Formats: sequence, structure tokens, C-alpha cells
Amino acid sequence: MTTTLINGVSANCIDVQDRGLGYIDVQDRGLHYGDGLFETFAVINGEPALWDRHMQRLQLGCQRLNFPNFLGPDLALLRSEALSLSGDVTQGVLKIIITRGGGGRGYRAPPPLAAQVTRILALYPWPDYPVAFWSEGVTVRVCATRLGWNPALAGIKHLNRLEQVLARSEWDDASVPEGLMLDIQGNVIEGTMTNLFVVRNGQLLTPDVSQCGVAGVMRSWILACARMAGIPSAITSLTLDMVTSADEIFLCNSVIGLWPVREIMGIPGCSFQVSGPITTDIMAKLRDSTVS
Amino acid sequence: MTTTLINGVSANCIDVQDRGLGYIDVQDRGLHYGDGLFETFAVINGEPALWDRHMQRLQLGCQRLNFPNFLGPDLALLRSEALSLSGDVTQGVLKIIITRGGGGRGYRAPPPLAAQVTRILALYPWPDYPVAFWSEGVTVRVCATRLGWNPALAGIKHLNRLEQVLARSEWDDASVPEGLMLDIQGNVIEGTMTNLFVVRNGQLLTPDVSQCGVAGVMRSWILACARMAGIPSAITSLTLDMVTSADEIFLCNSVIGLWPVREIMGIPGCSFQVSGPITTDIMAKLRDSTVS
Repeated sequence: MTTTLINGVSANCIDVQDRGLGYIDVQDRGLHYGDGLFETFAVINGEPALWDRHMQRLQLGCQRLNFPNFLGPDLALLRSEALSLSGDVTQGVLKIIITRGGGGRGYRAPPPLAAQVTRILALYPWPDYPVAFWSEGVTVRVCATRLGWNPALAGIKHLNRLEQVLARSEWDDASVPEGLMLDIQGNVIEGTMTNLFVVRNGQLLTPDVSQCGVAGVMRSWILACARMAGIPSAITSLTLDMVTSADEIFLCNSVIGLWPVREIMGIPGCSFQVSGPITTDIMAKLRDSTVS
Repeated sequence: MTTTLINGVSANCIDVQDRGLGYIDVQDRGLHYGDGLFETFAVINGEPALWDRHMQRLQLGCQRLNFPNFLGPDLALLRSEALSLSGDVTQGVLKIIITRGGGGRGYRAPPPLAAQVTRILALYPWPDYPVAFWSEGVTVRVCATRLGWNPALAGIKHLNRLEQVLARSEWDDASVPEGLMLDIQGNVIEGTMTNLFVVRNGQLLTPDVSQCGVAGVMRSWILACARMAGIPSAITSLTLDMVTSADEIFLCNSVIGLWPVREIMGIPGCSFQVSGPITTDIMAKLRDSTVS
């Protein structure tokens, strides 16, 4: 059962014709152009985890897309709506979508002051991934779909996600929960729904996302945890060779936290220790933190 | 006044709370990921122009995105709905949006057979561009926003259009109706809402759109007209220097037909003859064809 608020109105109030749980204006620029942003939260005991970090990225996205001023009171409104949906939830997923709202045909956006942002909050059940994905690690594949470069859109979590949709459509095997995506130059950037970390020579490395990819909230939290724990870390370029020859690999996002990678399919002999020292250390830090 | 059909239902039938003219399910993948396609038609005397070419591109897009089989009867249904909206229209714009429909959270698309495509047809008024844009040509600018490369998405008219939204937000001057967009390597590809043609040494050239950009329906029709008229033409790479030193330049799309380019702003001395022989020839061919 999904629970939804659209511009503060419970979806039940505008439900018609029994076709779903909520509707948005068909002229919304989120639909026409993907002209919007989203954030996905783990909700744990009524609290959307890492709220401030998610709001920082949302604000960065609003600045990049030149959205109307989305600061101060509106963030408080979002928080209040998020808590009203999450209050009774022990474990769930909250997705917030912000679009530029309506505005007629044409790429030209209405002036910031005139734009009426659309605000969607939807609650979803916790995904039923096997416990072994955390304890024994996951098998991943390498996607053929590449990430195009666009520094203006890189890092933020916007609604133009066809690259991820195409990459995720490349396989259909529930035992392989994720695929790695390379950019057009062959650098490994991220998974379709996760960020990537590797450990090489005791150093924690994660790909640069200034040309493409998403600057994940869990990625930033893990980098902060590493700093606090004194684990040397760096944001860098990673070739596929650097990934396949790493000592440890893990994936992360706001919902799963961290999955160690056990194996990369299709690359002979490419398996990793899933309880390597730095992976184990970071997993413990996440368990101790507000995330879980 | 916009007239809208959503999955065959007139928007008036599902209008609620007086908030607009139609609504779609908030879980639609068109909103969440831009997981869909669109086509924009000039409607002239009740007829959406260049219908077959638009349908060919739409089908190509459906294949690329691995949409459910969208052939045969569904095209007939689209045509019948398009005509029902366009029947009384002397001059207007019809936009068709096809999305992968609902499907819950996550990039993974439902299997093609299970997916329920969302079908939106909306009629808009004819845009009120000054007649001088056709007769005296237009001034264009060069956008700072670049087009990222992605061969899997290049050519088709998908709903991931943030690059165009960002490019179109770079200026606010009604006398400059269009901006040219370069790719990440500095090739000139297209306008934000138009394709580009240049004439050099008697040859009609238009940029390659295999890495990025849209393979416009009017672009393909103009290439066909040029072939019929015996005008030598080629699809090629164009640097900005090759564009600024061209003999003639024009822009095209399904709604405007063709606008000669008079001047490129910000490049000293960069002006063009707007009634050059090939531009004039192609304009006449478009006037004689079904387009107008």
C-alpha cells in the first residue's frame, strides 16, 4: 500500500475512477521533460534517515535547475509532510519528487517566481532483498549502457533517468541485484541505483561524479564515516581494471546501506573478499549511526 | 484551450478539483524517470502533418526503449484519437506522449507484456511567432549547455529533456527564438527545439545525430525534398566554424517548418543571406508539400 501526498493533499482525496492512488496534472513539466528532482529515503522507526544530507542535495538540484527558491519554510513543510507519512512506519521507503510544475508546451520554463513547484511524497514498502546480500555479498554485472557526460546535470538526482532504465533492462535475474555502469570514456562510475566504493592498498576510493553519475547521500555519509574513522579515502577516476583488481568492493545507497560485492559476472576469476577489513569497518559504522 | 485525451478518455471526464484539464497516475514512469517518448505535430486543416514519419520515429523510440509492441492496431487507435482531437482545427499543435505506464518504484521496467502504456494526446494553440521569423530570418545564439553523448538515446524523441530545458533557460529575449547546442566535443548538433541545416558550396548539410540530438521529422522530410529536387545533401559533423562560415543557414521543426537564420549573436560579422537559393528552394518545396 502506497501512501501519497501531492502538494499536501492526500491522494485519496483526489482519487477518481479507481485507477490508482493519486494523480498529477498531465501538463506537469516533470512528465513532459523530466524537469524535476527526487530523493529516496530509508524510513526507520518513523524517521527518514539522513534527512539533512538529502535536503542539501535537493537544494543543490534546485539551484542547478534554477527552480524557485526552495529554502526555509518550504523545507520545513517537506519535513512536516514527510513525518506525517512516516510516523507509523517501522521500516519503509519514502520518495520525494519535486517538479517545476505546469507551464504549457515548450522547453522554456516559466520564470522562477511564476513557477508553481509540484511536491509529491510517496511511501513504499521496504524492498524484500535477501539477507544474504548484506552478509554474503552480491554478484553484479557490467552494463553495456553507458553514462553520457553532462556536468550541468551530473551529481544531482534529476528525473532524466532513461540511462538507468536502459541499463537495468539489460538483465532479468533476481540473484544479480545490480549492474555497474561505465561512462563513455570507459571509467566505472556507479551502479544503476547505487554508488560504488573500492578498497585498494588500504585506501577507500569512489568514482568522481562531476561529469556523470549521482552524488549519493549514502556515498557522502560513508566518506564522512571514513574520515571520522581515519580511513584514507579519495574521489578519483576508476577504470574497470582498477575495480576488478581491487581488494574489496561495495555498493551503497540510502535504502540498502551497503552491500559487499562478491563477484563481477563475466570476468573470469573476479571475486572479492566480502568481509574485508575496511568494508567490515564501514558496515559497523553505518549500523552504529542514525541510518539503521 | 487545450484538449486532452488520456488513454482515450477525454480529460474533462476525469477532471477533479478544477485544477487543470487532465491528470495522470502519480506512479507513471513517464514522471518518475522520463520513461517515454513524444511527438509534436503541426495540425493543418484537421490533419496532423507528416503523420507517417512521426509514427516511424515513435516506433523506433518504442523499439529502443523496449516498449510493449506498439504496432498495427495501436497506431490505428492513435490515428483515430489524433483525428478526433484535430478534426475542427484549422491550425494548431498536437502533442502525443507515450510512457511505459505505472510500475512502482525502481528503474527496472515491468516486462513488456505486463506494461500498460500510457497514451496522452493534447491539442495546443498555434504559437504566435512573428511572420518576420520566416520572411526575414531569425537571430540565434550559441548555448553554453552542451549535449551529452548517448548513442542508445540519440535520435529518438524521449522524455529526458533537461539539457534542452537548461539550454532554453540561458536567455530571455522573445526576439531571439532559438539557441544552437554543441555536443561535448564542440560539434554543432541542433537548436533546443529545432534541427539545423547549413549550405556550403552548394551542398546542404545537417549534423549527424547518432551520438546525441534528435532526428527531427522535418529534418528527414527536408532531406527527402532535397533528394527529390536534386540538391546535393549530406549528414555530417559540423564545427562552429563550419556553421559560422556557411553560405546559408536554416532551422526546422514540425511546427515552424523552416526559419532562415539571419545572424548568430555574439560572433562578430556573423550574418547570412536569408533568401539564399537553396533555402528559398526548400521553403518552396515545403509550401507545396502536405506540410502546409
